[in-house]
Amino acid sequence: MDNTLNQLKARLAEIADLFKASEVLGWDMQTYMPPGGGEARSEQIATLQKLGHEKFTQAEIGQWLEELKPTLERLDPDSDDAGILRVAARDYDRARKVPTELVAEIARTTSMAHEVWAKARAEKNFQAFLPMLEKIIELKRRVSACFGEQDSPYDPLLDDYEPGMKAAQVRAVFDELKRDLVPLVKAIAAKPEVDDSVLHKDYDEQKQWDFGEAVIKRFGYDFSRGRQDKSVHPFTTSFSSSDVRITTRLMRNFIPSALMGTLHECGHALYEQGVAPELSRTPLADGTSLGVHESQSRMWENLVGRSRGFWKYFYPQLQAVFPENLGKVDLDVFYKALNKVKPSLIRVEADEVTYNLHTLLRFELEVDLMEGRLKAKDLPAAWNAKVKEYLGLDVPDDSQGVLQDVHWSAGYIGYFPTYTLGNILSVQFFEKAVQAVPSIPADIEHGEFGGLLGWLRENIHRHGRKYTPNELIQRVTGSPLNAKPYLAYLKKKYQALYGIGDEELRHN
Amino acid sequence: MDNTLNQLKARLAEIADLFKASEVLGWDMQTYMPPGGGEARSEQIATLQKLGHEKFTQAEIGQWLEELKPTLERLDPDSDDAGILRVAARDYDRARKVPTELVAEIARTTSMAHEVWAKARAEKNFQAFLPMLEKIIELKRRVSACFGEQDSPYDPLLDDYEPGMKAAQVRAVFDELKRDLVPLVKAIAAKPEVDDSVLHKDYDEQKQWDFGEAVIKRFGYDFSRGRQDKSVHPFTTSFSSSDVRITTRLMRNFIPSALMGTLHECGHALYEQGVAPELSRTPLADGTSLGVHESQSRMWENLVGRSRGFWKYFYPQLQAVFPENLGKVDLDVFYKALNKVKPSLIRVEADEVTYNLHTLLRFELEVDLMEGRLKAKDLPAAWNAKVKEYLGLDVPDDSQGVLQDVHWSAGYIGYFPTYTLGNILSVQFFEKAVQAVPSIPADIEHGEFGGLLGWLRENIHRHGRKYTPNELIQRVTGSPLNAKPYLAYLKKKYQALYGIGDEELRHN
Repeated sequence: MDNTLNQLKARLAEIADLFKASEVLGWDMQTYMPPGGGEARSEQIATLQKLGHEKFTQAEIGQWLEELKPTLERLDPDSDDAGILRVAARDYDRARKVPTELVAEIARTTSMAHEVWAKARAEKNFQAFLPMLEKIIELKRRVSACFGEQDSPYDPLLDDYEPGMKAAQVRAVFDELKRDLVPLVKAIAAKPEVDDSVLHKDYDEQKQWDFGEAVIKRFGYDFSRGRQDKSVHPFTTSFSSSDVRITTRLMRNFIPSALMGTLHECGHALYEQGVAPELSRTPLADGTSLGVHESQSRMWENLVGRSRGFWKYFYPQLQAVFPENLGKVDLDVFYKALNKVKPSLIRVEADEVTYNLHTLLRFELEVDLMEGRLKAKDLPAAWNAKVKEYLGLDVPDDSQGVLQDVHWSAGYIGYFPTYTLGNILSVQFFEKAVQAVPSIPADIEHGEFGGLLGWLRENIHRHGRKYTPNELIQRVTGSPLNAKPYLAYLKKKYQALYGIGDEELRHN
Repeated sequence: MDNTLNQLKARLAEIADLFKASEVLGWDMQTYMPPGGGEARSEQIATLQKLGHEKFTQAEIGQWLEELKPTLERLDPDSDDAGILRVAARDYDRARKVPTELVAEIARTTSMAHEVWAKARAEKNFQAFLPMLEKIIELKRRVSACFGEQDSPYDPLLDDYEPGMKAAQVRAVFDELKRDLVPLVKAIAAKPEVDDSVLHKDYDEQKQWDFGEAVIKRFGYDFSRGRQDKSVHPFTTSFSSSDVRITTRLMRNFIPSALMGTLHECGHALYEQGVAPELSRTPLADGTSLGVHESQSRMWENLVGRSRGFWKYFYPQLQAVFPENLGKVDLDVFYKALNKVKPSLIRVEADEVTYNLHTLLRFELEVDLMEGRLKAKDLPAAWNAKVKEYLGLDVPDDSQGVLQDVHWSAGYIGYFPTYTLGNILSVQFFEKAVQAVPSIPADIEHGEFGGLLGWLRENIHRHGRKYTPNELIQRVTGSPLNAKPYLAYLKKKYQALYGIGDEELRHN
């Protein structure tokens, strides 16, 4: 048995190496690759992915997993080996259930769709993208069907990003969120708009860069096991827990772009740097889901990085770096500007409060598409109606509406809700951390983050993929996924910032 | 048949992707990888190399090659497909002849040997390295034996770096070189030492960097298909002919280090950027041998970059960049300093003339070791005697003698002669280029390199590995490998620089 387990682990290690190598090639492509390198690079990445997939779906792996079922039953369920066997079996089942030809057809279609989508968006022409979108939805419904009878055809797709979560569970939590958020956003929109011109002054890029790196060093990001580079779209990538890299982009006339982006990616990176080194080259060496990953990035970006306590410590330092811009600006003015809420059309530019309404409406539309209640051709109208209802805005054209995001053209259906799941979880986890380490809020005011990071490492990071999101949430917080703490956090913070009484919300 | 050929080419393309991916990981390791990333990176590279080797040595490849033998005979021998079939068959035979266990044992041994060698060198203790060296020589003799009866057991090892070349051929050419170089070096050593202090002033590193890049842009290095970065040891690496990267290292107090290093690596890179794009993802997409590769780097570094004509154009520009260091220094003083010859103990610090004696003595010792005339334990004495004979120097300790190079500890036996083969070939090729494009010398004085690069592209670069070194030399120059042009070049240049009459050489 040991021999079979070792054989399996050795094979899984090789497979992990192939996928990690592909990550390195992807990182290089987005940071340092000269323009001419793209074509060969795409071939190389495709080959690594294909070989990794082929190696993982070989029947031999299935036989080994079958032989090892009795071993798994004897093992301590919390042991690394049990985790490896559970996760490898789950991944194997998923990978084998979808026929290779269907996977290939999706790859071909989405590869074409990207260009069609980009052109349609530039030309504000949804009709040009519609046939592609219909095809993608059809293909994703076929993927879903590979998993047999389900409560919702959306479930197997969501499972790609949030193993074990169901559409119904997410919908219940999101409905609760929506019930309270829509009135909150309306109440804020009725207040005078915050002046955030202080954020739009001229900020030297090198100084922005250095300040961001100084902050994440204090967070505990280990530069001997990582680095930051520039890229068009910020991202985090992990080649092992000892080499986790982040990227950012700098905007001279908007300081939150690089800074908050760096804190966000740092949150992802702290998770990956915190995965137990013993899990290297196993299927466990990764975050357990996109939602849990996002809970970490949002926690460091928002709960820490947009909090008044954080800026109590860091604002004097930022003033010292940019005396001409900030020397005479009060902490409260800066803090309020950084937390300005304003309903807008574009998700990626949205603030902490309205952001959730953007993902929420996409989730609702995705589910309707997959469950057959909505046709792709009717998407723009449905989209625009929800934007009006949730954000109070009219969509002037589809480039600012249904065409704005790349996700659907890439076949990512089930991805959007993970952003808001991350927000919800960030508060569930943070409150638990503060309960366990009560000094955390005061520590933040003194630029100390070891207590928080230590708790996250111990309770979340080190496990990697050993537990599913629902298992991890239950294990860490003692309760299931729950929107209430997040809602309470938002209301407390933004009612105070905007001077909104409880009665103003109840009226809606 | 077409189908078999296509299957073979598709497989070879995947194998090429694996090895190129491994190159990307290696480049990153030496440029941007954080210190913590090394362990996982070594595993990833080892896996890619192993899978590439496994895929290439599968019996199926041999069957396809066998089936395609009639096709090869029908094909135009100059066609790409014929080249692919020839080179793939040669590589396959070589890869299959050495048993996997022997390859693995060499990998294990050299992996250990590196550390033992580094320690022995630091401690100037040859005895500590001797057992490892003996083991490596024994293993390489076993590799050689896998190829059956040979004129010399050195031949199959040399073949790794110079396909088709034989020890006897190299020895004849090197003997001719030695006969003339030893007296030349002695005559130079008898002259007053050149004052090269101008090269050792304080040179701003960024300005060095920019100047080097400006020069290679004029050479024709395409930055849209490449880039330069910093690394401890300068190198060139190619991920495709559209992504060929170089590195350099900067020394504030010695300007030739970065500059001449950049021109050298650029020479390698121009070769790789010039391989025909059609050969991408085939076994032909690479330089044909280390010697031919080195002919390109040495040509741009020495024949171009250390020539008086080159500096006639570029020296005023360099003076403008460093007016405080060079403003009052004559071109001739700078040119003489840059071409200073002085016998020294360390190969990598040697000048254009004495360099060859370093590689030559290593070649002679390697052949003696492999042919059994020399025992590893007697190496230091043999080394020191040759250094005395060729360079007129006493070796104070083995760290400055037999222990100085990493090559043997890595199992690279047959590698050293390629450096001098490159020197020899650089002049054979250059003279042919000037014959075909007589304006080249005058062009160089005007900072124009298109004629030279165009000729190299057409006659050498685009073919990749299609022809063996001997085939290429014959095809390009109309004669075999020949030391005479190189010797004539060295004598003309350095007799003039040092005021040495022919009679001074004849006396020796």
